[in-house]
Amino acid sequence: MLKDFERKKAEDKDTLSAEIKHIREQLLGQQQLLRDAKLPVIVLIEGWAAAGKGSLINELISEIDPRFYHVVSPAIVPEKEERFPFLYPFFTAIPENGKITFLDSGWMESVVRKYLRHEITKEEYRSRIRQINEFERQLRDGGYLVLKIFLHIEKKEQFERLHVLVDNPETEWRVTQEDLWQHREYRRFMDAYDDFMKKTDELIPWHILDGSRRKTAARDALKLLKETIQDGLDNGRFTGDPFEEEFPLKKMPRLADVDLSPTITDEEYKKELKRLQKRLSELHNIIYRKKIPVILCYEGWDAAGKGGNIRRVAYPLDPRGFDVQPIASPLPHELSRHYLWRFWTRLPRSGHICIFDRTWYGRVMVERLEGFCSEKDWQRAYNEINEFERQLTDWGAVLIKFWIHIDQDTQLARFTERQNTPEKQWKITEEDWRNREKWDQYEVAVDEMLQKTSTKNAPWHIIESNDKKYARIRTLKIIVKALEKACEEHFEQMME
Amino acid sequence: MLKDFERKKAEDKDTLSAEIKHIREQLLGQQQLLRDAKLPVIVLIEGWAAAGKGSLINELISEIDPRFYHVVSPAIVPEKEERFPFLYPFFTAIPENGKITFLDSGWMESVVRKYLRHEITKEEYRSRIRQINEFERQLRDGGYLVLKIFLHIEKKEQFERLHVLVDNPETEWRVTQEDLWQHREYRRFMDAYDDFMKKTDELIPWHILDGSRRKTAARDALKLLKETIQDGLDNGRFTGDPFEEEFPLKKMPRLADVDLSPTITDEEYKKELKRLQKRLSELHNIIYRKKIPVILCYEGWDAAGKGGNIRRVAYPLDPRGFDVQPIASPLPHELSRHYLWRFWTRLPRSGHICIFDRTWYGRVMVERLEGFCSEKDWQRAYNEINEFERQLTDWGAVLIKFWIHIDQDTQLARFTERQNTPEKQWKITEEDWRNREKWDQYEVAVDEMLQKTSTKNAPWHIIESNDKKYARIRTLKIIVKALEKACEEHFEQMME
Repeated sequence: MLKDFERKKAEDKDTLSAEIKHIREQLLGQQQLLRDAKLPVIVLIEGWAAAGKGSLINELISEIDPRFYHVVSPAIVPEKEERFPFLYPFFTAIPENGKITFLDSGWMESVVRKYLRHEITKEEYRSRIRQINEFERQLRDGGYLVLKIFLHIEKKEQFERLHVLVDNPETEWRVTQEDLWQHREYRRFMDAYDDFMKKTDELIPWHILDGSRRKTAARDALKLLKETIQDGLDNGRFTGDPFEEEFPLKKMPRLADVDLSPTITDEEYKKELKRLQKRLSELHNIIYRKKIPVILCYEGWDAAGKGGNIRRVAYPLDPRGFDVQPIASPLPHELSRHYLWRFWTRLPRSGHICIFDRTWYGRVMVERLEGFCSEKDWQRAYNEINEFERQLTDWGAVLIKFWIHIDQDTQLARFTERQNTPEKQWKITEEDWRNREKWDQYEVAVDEMLQKTSTKNAPWHIIESNDKKYARIRTLKIIVKALEKACEEHFEQMME
Repeated sequence: MLKDFERKKAEDKDTLSAEIKHIREQLLGQQQLLRDAKLPVIVLIEGWAAAGKGSLINELISEIDPRFYHVVSPAIVPEKEERFPFLYPFFTAIPENGKITFLDSGWMESVVRKYLRHEITKEEYRSRIRQINEFERQLRDGGYLVLKIFLHIEKKEQFERLHVLVDNPETEWRVTQEDLWQHREYRRFMDAYDDFMKKTDELIPWHILDGSRRKTAARDALKLLKETIQDGLDNGRFTGDPFEEEFPLKKMPRLADVDLSPTITDEEYKKELKRLQKRLSELHNIIYRKKIPVILCYEGWDAAGKGGNIRRVAYPLDPRGFDVQPIASPLPHELSRHYLWRFWTRLPRSGHICIFDRTWYGRVMVERLEGFCSEKDWQRAYNEINEFERQLTDWGAVLIKFWIHIDQDTQLARFTERQNTPEKQWKITEEDWRNREKWDQYEVAVDEMLQKTSTKNAPWHIIESNDKKYARIRTLKIIVKALEKACEEHFEQMME
């Protein structure tokens, strides 16, 4: 009897090895197809400390060409040291088309630990679950193949593994205080993992693998990876349908109805400029100390006066604490990732001010009109952008959006002046003239954008800029007011 | 008399304002020319705490279009927390062609502070001065315009300024313990700044400005910036001459003389692979704990077996602690910076292993042969690369370089096999066949590279790879031996 049992076990082991070898060969063949199909893949490996996440990843990558994958281990930083939104390390780590990112624990571990450590409240926990679901949907809808694995071991197994590691002086350092804490609080972690998975299982399902059986887990993970890729290869790149979420919106006027006549006298301008810049400089100090992130977004017609406006805002700021991000056409490595990636990677750290000279709204303007993305893509973008901006304001950012507005006659006058002034000629290109011809189409797109994305937390401000000086004073006033409010609120929160 | 004096003073002030206005206008005109000429500019502003570095930068940037500049304030991190070579924050911050980077204190402050704080020894200080001179020369020779300004104030002036800041609750936080320490140790800092400037003045001179006279300093800095740019515009992009430094070199055989016959039996291969991978895994643990950075460089003929070799090395490594960096043709944003920039930005943090699949040696191979850089450029590169690698080993990195070597017949056999095996076809391109035709030219370039860059601290290893398995065991043995030595040395240093 025992001999039969032993033989059966050996056979099973052989079968398993043969299966693993077979799947690996299939994966090897898929690599090239994945690259040709330009499909990006994200593999999230979560699980208990000492469950074998690292080894599992090693099994997954062992036959993949190093040019095609990247392993990321986002460190779990205590909340107070984090200077970016909590999704930042994950969104910035997404792969290029045709490549695979493996995450050695990720958004689940990050949120669960912080919740159990009371670094975030119940309410923040719920908000993060929502943001994670948004994030995963955005990835899926943007054509990413996402595989989520949880590697499970029982408390007894974890105890034994931690013991083995601690007993060996060579590996002792691998067991952290955090791991021991998790072990002591195994039950609480169990409940928290369970709750997290239940709440994030609908869109992209979790796969729980048994970490106590390494080889079986490796086989299953390889199989899941193969199937995920095959699914993408069979069905082609997925494009999500537009999807409406309820965002409280501010009613915006149509551009055609905006009165562009307001002006300011030179005297008033000088006085106000000085006063507001001084105030802004003071507020920058407070912002910096209180670590409030500030994001200023500039959009507007060509020659509307964005550059000069930005310079007047930047002048009183301490250069150590702000940054201007000019947004041009995406570079190849940006084009081959989710369109929001290049904005995530440019976010300011808390306490800093970032001025975006053009923004993610290119998606629903130039990309829409020039056909750089599909109709579904830009239709979906309104919602995705509202989500993105809510993620930023949930993080605590002050987010202010300006549409710098002029009329067609003013644009023509400024174009002509640029053309005729040698040191301004670089500012005017053939493309500007071409865009001008599409004024009406742009106006439709901008009107739709203003209606659909002027949320309560991140409203649009239409700035009348036929008189540039008037426009500068108006933006400065809006910025000063918003920062004063943020500093006050921050103060109140701290007093509570 | 007093009235005359007052009038004179007011006139001077007016003259100064007019001058500043005039220079700003000139700078405005230069922007576009700078962009057209694709000249990159680096402005380093060093100086005493409270000397007004931030305000000076504000004066410099106020009229420059935000698309053309970037302000960087590299934080001065205590030595023990630094996980990168000390030049890392500066080399990674260099601008693209046509743009300006302003550094709000930089390599001078970083080195001087650490030296005065006894975080680095006298010897390390001298080594860093040498590295800084190398860095500045590399920038200049690569066409960068570099301007170095030191903003000086006397001890009394510093006292008053710190006092004003501390007395105001709004600005009190700006004065750090570090600043107060500097003030107490004013004399020592004075000597250290002086020594540093003397030793780094020859190649790119320092300009000392009087920080107690803000307007004059602003005028002078604006003028210096204007002149620096004008110099570049008048004389065109500078290309440095090749320049030989004495590096202790290891004698290397010519490729033609390498015996490619060694092989290994399958049995021996399996045994050795297992043993060496196990040992490598153990060593990775130690490396990680001791925070030793490891850089493995792979170069070699197409189809020499680099990929498979790298996979065997990577397999036993913890994916949290290593990274493979495949190096392809530079992307546009890489091309428009110094050729070493894309390698600086890819360096591993200490304790991590980075495997470069192709490297900076592209400069003296493909870029040389395809004419992607001038003859002066690649001739100069041998020296620059030796300097770069010495900077890495001075940092403490283990740097191992492999030339994976095969003969032409073996390459042909492997190309043909790839062509005939569907799942390997992606590995073979038209370019590979074209490169093959240039075998002889490449051989000349590779021989020269091996002779000129096999330094004692970073020697080349020619790996006989007609038998891929033999090659894998050889590289593993070399890596294991080097890591064992590094761990030992590290241990000895700690015991001293």
